[in-house]
Amino acid sequence: MARRLTAEQYTKGLLAGDRLVLSRAITLVESTLATDHALAQQVLGAVLPRTGRSVRIGITGVPGVGKSTFIEALGMYVVEQLGLRLAVLAIDPTSQRSGGSILGDKTRMQHLSAHANAYIRPSPAGRSLGGVARATREALLLCEAAGYDVIFVETVGVGQSETAVHGMVDFFLLLMLAGAGDELQGVKRGIMEMADAVVITKADSGNELAAKRARREYQGALHLFPLGSSGWAPVVRTCSALTGEGVPGVWEELQRYLEHARGNGYFERRRQEQNLQWLHHSIREALEERFYARPAVQQQLGAIREQVMRGEKSAFAAADELLDL
Amino acid sequence: MARRLTAEQYTKGLLAGDRLVLSRAITLVESTLATDHALAQQVLGAVLPRTGRSVRIGITGVPGVGKSTFIEALGMYVVEQLGLRLAVLAIDPTSQRSGGSILGDKTRMQHLSAHANAYIRPSPAGRSLGGVARATREALLLCEAAGYDVIFVETVGVGQSETAVHGMVDFFLLLMLAGAGDELQGVKRGIMEMADAVVITKADSGNELAAKRARREYQGALHLFPLGSSGWAPVVRTCSALTGEGVPGVWEELQRYLEHARGNGYFERRRQEQNLQWLHHSIREALEERFYARPAVQQQLGAIREQVMRGEKSAFAAADELLDL
Repeated sequence: MARRLTAEQYTKGLLAGDRLVLSRAITLVESTLATDHALAQQVLGAVLPRTGRSVRIGITGVPGVGKSTFIEALGMYVVEQLGLRLAVLAIDPTSQRSGGSILGDKTRMQHLSAHANAYIRPSPAGRSLGGVARATREALLLCEAAGYDVIFVETVGVGQSETAVHGMVDFFLLLMLAGAGDELQGVKRGIMEMADAVVITKADSGNELAAKRARREYQGALHLFPLGSSGWAPVVRTCSALTGEGVPGVWEELQRYLEHARGNGYFERRRQEQNLQWLHHSIREALEERFYARPAVQQQLGAIREQVMRGEKSAFAAADELLDL
Repeated sequence: MARRLTAEQYTKGLLAGDRLVLSRAITLVESTLATDHALAQQVLGAVLPRTGRSVRIGITGVPGVGKSTFIEALGMYVVEQLGLRLAVLAIDPTSQRSGGSILGDKTRMQHLSAHANAYIRPSPAGRSLGGVARATREALLLCEAAGYDVIFVETVGVGQSETAVHGMVDFFLLLMLAGAGDELQGVKRGIMEMADAVVITKADSGNELAAKRARREYQGALHLFPLGSSGWAPVVRTCSALTGEGVPGVWEELQRYLEHARGNGYFERRRQEQNLQWLHHSIREALEERFYARPAVQQQLGAIREQVMRGEKSAFAAADELLDL
């Protein structure tokens, strides 16, 4: 088998929903080779008219919150009860360190990963957040072209990647544990205000009352916070991935949200804005990448950063200096 | 009197605390002329060793929250009771529209603006947020060089400028009204999670109980939210600028914060990070400004944005196309 297919082969395979071709197309968009890049853009351009028809859901939560079991439970509900096709992607720039990825271990989602209507893809590894985010968004488009109705984008909830995920999904789900306080230390500040829904996980095994109390508290707290431009008031739900209780409720909230956001035009407007944001982010990243790769900049940057950090040189003067190199 | 002083005259005047020279130096950093820019950088470079010794406080809140009267009350406390020198700056990119500025109307702060130890400067007008933010941060450094102990940076709480202010201050104060709900519509989502302290204003004239209740509610809500990297738990206070009640309490919280943040090293680390952020923001803005000013880009951008928005062209392919022009 050839290492790469032709653009036509990729396109045909994708539109036919061929999982093997989908996997190879995602590998292509993840590649950092210039030749792969050109081919990937050709494929993406060809399938673009067939994208955009899925519901894109971001799911985040710190390690220990039960993210995998939640995704397995909600995912099985989507493929089994609703009969929809589901793709699960991930963004985890930290996986560079371990060389693995948050979705690498498929045993984490035993039933889902074995299901014919589910496609699970780990986070691309070994690249910057920008690169990982870009590859994941392109993979999302490829999954849509391959006919997946629902896309989950998983992230770890402790870093910068949540903003990137928020910029590529329609609905953002934050998983939390009952027992407000300590477990919050891991959640990055600012994530809470991105959430369209908060799900209190592990509402089982004697933990039901604590989960209910947490739900009430968070719901009260969220009411005090300003609405986003969608006009949607974030909701809080409890859920047990173990017993399945609350799983359909999470899906109902998503449906309520979609009705709301499609009704007031926000859904379509948001997707258009996201497209534009990706355009300008891509330009920005390319400009910065080129700038910081200049030999003269690389040579001076370290010393200048030191001077700026210590307050010996003003940030603006230093910027001028580097730009004039 | 010459339109511009020499670099040495600016420097000497600033270090001597000359208010007139300070005003003219701020006009210089606000200028968009290339010759002024070079002179401004020379002056800033000369006074830089004398900056950094003030406490920098961001103050935000939507129109109607009583921001001016609060700043007048807290400001008078600072200059009268504490005997410190105070400078009040503003960031308001929207003032482009009105041609005025949020601090333009000095009658708003009658006592403070007449006080020998207070210096009030309106927002620079007629420029982009980036330009306004940059000018304000440079003005802040000039005020420090001129010996001001405390700097307030005021912003309107409804736009993008809060992030810029957050990036130049040590402590971020959000003003809110009692009666959670409707008035929140004006506050931009995400601002709440930047706040180191929330102050419920207008806790007077029969509004005291509502203010107390709001304080309790917000304090409860904030406890549910993750701490920032400072490890500081945001506090909520009530305050009446009319009676003066609660004004010293706000100052006490600031002192508690400074003790906390200096104690764990966050204060110094944050300032260094802010310096670096300004360096990289400045570079980014300059790169983008140059890119979008290219005639070929200007010519194509509109049509390409349309295609991307409508999903006819992928954001990444479009970015490549523009970058290749």
